[in-house]
Amino acid sequence: MESRWTEEDWKRCCGSTKFAKEMAAAGPFSDLDHAVRTARHIWLNLVDVKGWLEGFAAHPAIGTTSPSVSQWCKEEQSKAMTTATDTTMEELKDWNRKYMDKFGFVFLICASGRGTPEILAELKKRYTNRPIVELENAAHEESKITELRIKRLFETTEVAATSVA
Amino acid sequence: MESRWTEEDWKRCCGSTKFAKEMAAAGPFSDLDHAVRTARHIWLNLVDVKGWLEGFAAHPAIGTTSPSVSQWCKEEQSKAMTTATDTTMEELKDWNRKYMDKFGFVFLICASGRGTPEILAELKKRYTNRPIVELENAAHEESKITELRIKRLFETTEVAATSVA
Repeated sequence: MESRWTEEDWKRCCGSTKFAKEMAAAGPFSDLDHAVRTARHIWLNLVDVKGWLEGFAAHPAIGTTSPSVSQWCKEEQSKAMTTATDTTMEELKDWNRKYMDKFGFVFLICASGRGTPEILAELKKRYTNRPIVELENAAHEESKITELRIKRLFETTEVAATSVA
Repeated sequence: MESRWTEEDWKRCCGSTKFAKEMAAAGPFSDLDHAVRTARHIWLNLVDVKGWLEGFAAHPAIGTTSPSVSQWCKEEQSKAMTTATDTTMEELKDWNRKYMDKFGFVFLICASGRGTPEILAELKKRYTNRPIVELENAAHEESKITELRIKRLFETTEVAATSVA
């Protein structure tokens, strides 16, 4: 069913061009699990470091509320948003900036279900890491976010198929 | 004595701008060991991943013989050059290209004293690695090359000082 998914669909799951191309070429997938395992393999083994940075760059900083932020992104951050006060939001922005200055890419965390205090504590802790360690942490978080989004892609397609049936 | 060294001098040791700036700011150094320890700390803890890639990009592919290759670089590769045959040089070029395609940066090895067969074997072995593992290997090799070059910088300055005395 998912053979209809294009490179563009996969790019919404993860912003690396190489990842999207490889996923489009690897399909069709027998089920969600097959797609997720393939995505993990591609991200960890075939996408190079520049591709990782490209993937990271597709995310807005945590807490960004501009209209250009995608609906998926807003929903993933919904708990963070409802638990944020003006003070914690300011602090989050400051720390995001510090993090970006040190590592050269946005602070990435699979925010689904996490509140702002928890995210802020994690940001401060990860800020002390060496750049190579943080690169690996960010890649791991990106992988988790991608998996949630692939799940959504499957759900969306299933809903669409049911309503057509 | 080495307080005369500029950002440009440090950039000849390692092509990362951040590295060169931090070294220029961290001096003067009491001796070679002090400089090497500082360089290691800066490279591993303060230079981000984009800075690592900038450092790697300053190296020609192993085996390159164009006139733009620096004298230091030629000397570091002199054993590789004298042990190369036409066949191994062709093979080295092919594998360099494959490596660059997979990882997005040049194959880096501290070539000092190594022959072409040994370098080629190492390239083939490292080619099978995951991108993140190879990034760390390349950074480690870059660090070794940088240390050899800092040693040369100290020797050059000492020779110059002696001939002035």
